[in-house]
Amino acid sequence: MIVVLAGGVGAARFLQGLVQVVSPEQVVVVINTADDCELHGLYISPDIDSVLYHLSGLADEARGWGVRDETFHALAMLARYGAETWFQLGDRDLATHLVRTRLLRAGHSLSEVTDALRRALGIGCRLLPMTDARVATEIETPAGWLPFQVYFVQRRAADPVRGVRFRGIEEARPAPGVLEALAAADGIILAPSNPVVSLGPILAVPGVRAALQATRAPIVGISPIVGGATIKGPADQMLRGLGHEVSPVGVARLFADCLSAFIVDRIDAALAPAVAALGVRPVIADTIMRGPAEKAALARVALGALAEARAR
Amino acid sequence: MIVVLAGGVGAARFLQGLVQVVSPEQVVVVINTADDCELHGLYISPDIDSVLYHLSGLADEARGWGVRDETFHALAMLARYGAETWFQLGDRDLATHLVRTRLLRAGHSLSEVTDALRRALGIGCRLLPMTDARVATEIETPAGWLPFQVYFVQRRAADPVRGVRFRGIEEARPAPGVLEALAAADGIILAPSNPVVSLGPILAVPGVRAALQATRAPIVGISPIVGGATIKGPADQMLRGLGHEVSPVGVARLFADCLSAFIVDRIDAALAPAVAALGVRPVIADTIMRGPAEKAALARVALGALAEARAR
Repeated sequence: MIVVLAGGVGAARFLQGLVQVVSPEQVVVVINTADDCELHGLYISPDIDSVLYHLSGLADEARGWGVRDETFHALAMLARYGAETWFQLGDRDLATHLVRTRLLRAGHSLSEVTDALRRALGIGCRLLPMTDARVATEIETPAGWLPFQVYFVQRRAADPVRGVRFRGIEEARPAPGVLEALAAADGIILAPSNPVVSLGPILAVPGVRAALQATRAPIVGISPIVGGATIKGPADQMLRGLGHEVSPVGVARLFADCLSAFIVDRIDAALAPAVAALGVRPVIADTIMRGPAEKAALARVALGALAEARAR
Repeated sequence: MIVVLAGGVGAARFLQGLVQVVSPEQVVVVINTADDCELHGLYISPDIDSVLYHLSGLADEARGWGVRDETFHALAMLARYGAETWFQLGDRDLATHLVRTRLLRAGHSLSEVTDALRRALGIGCRLLPMTDARVATEIETPAGWLPFQVYFVQRRAADPVRGVRFRGIEEARPAPGVLEALAAADGIILAPSNPVVSLGPILAVPGVRAALQATRAPIVGISPIVGGATIKGPADQMLRGLGHEVSPVGVARLFADCLSAFIVDRIDAALAPAVAALGVRPVIADTIMRGPAEKAALARVALGALAEARAR
């Protein structure tokens, strides 16, 4: 059984590759929920939705978010009512939020709701939110502390980042099955996700980092930083703003206490010795996932790194 | 100031005529809310929405419900999640329910929410729900007591009607402004709506029927039964099931204690003496509202009947 710690799109694309090379039933995905927000009375889980839509084949992969062939008629009508519309909610996407919100209000946990959604969409992987508690990432900027989606979507990640905090994280507990999966895993993969606001919250849930350090399973990471920048999203400027090195080395350092190996893009091969100096075996590979073949190839590299770590 | 007691589509079409011939600011509409229901966690007010969409020009008049050029993409996705989809919720329509539900959950009354919606859509008439309390029409059929929308939409009004009740009506109070409007009105019009489940609940809100009997304003009704049947909806079979005469006389009898005059379609002119025998002045007119001209003409007939009653 392979456990993947996942943020949004980068993780979702990696998972599309992984389920090509291992049976989906052998994959457990632990997903960041600290980006979750409430809008128009709906509970929205952007990272869970990215994984749901990518693994069900519904994702608009060209746009990088939401559902393919999406329309925005409800949003246009919300605008007529004077509602905030900076968060682009598609009509099909709305159905996901409606179902989730209704089930949560009926007393179901986010774990239960997420499981119901992935089954309805025919997804074989188990999808676990990192926690059933409400955790909210906030970004410190010159404009003050901003809720993550305000920083990321409404203000287009344009503010310099001075700090990051996860409100509610101290009281959060790992969702049912998370610690069990980490303990029982044959291998654990940190997806190529934002190390600060995607993987960061997962590891900050009390007990998760200790479980990663304690598990007998090897742990492999994949750098989301390639050639000094991110493929997508604000990870590079976040790392910079927080005083971290904007490179695979900077990312590997954040997780060096857990990592067996770290996959670095070929373009950054020269940084391999610096990764090794952290006590983490560097693995050089092509990490840009343009299409299905590259996604599967990267998954094979990660599985190979896990196998190699187990063999040592 | 003219007060209109209104149900759904028939009332909404009549109001489109009325605002052609009097200033919308002089019109107060008291709307049935006993058809309201909750679906997908959303609070839906079908009769309020019919009035909102017709008076804002958004209505799909050919279909008779919902918004013009509507799409149903959210509903299709809800179906993928296994949610009930017998109640056709359009994408644009969803926005109305989202805004209403969010404001209600935030503690606003249905009156306040309705006023916010009609202002956002540029509607000049005041729209008052009959009550801010939750009242729910239930229909007794051979299959048992059914919630109104289950009887009407899900089962397509196919069950014989044995009884009708309005749950919660005893504890309901008229919404703010309703009794004041009835007392201050220059004239009151009962729209051509279902007398049992549209006008019935409004008059059953404690205090409303007494206010209609006590007001100095004349009260004019318009028969929704023409030639022994309804233009739209199940009013005829409901009247029959409940033992009422399926004719303008049967409808006038239900409201004879309040009515000054009752407008009967030309096709039913022979029934005028039977209406008069109830102590209600019959007014013969064309009542089928095919287009804007017929709507305005019917409004003029109603205003004329009010003026005549005042002059007596």
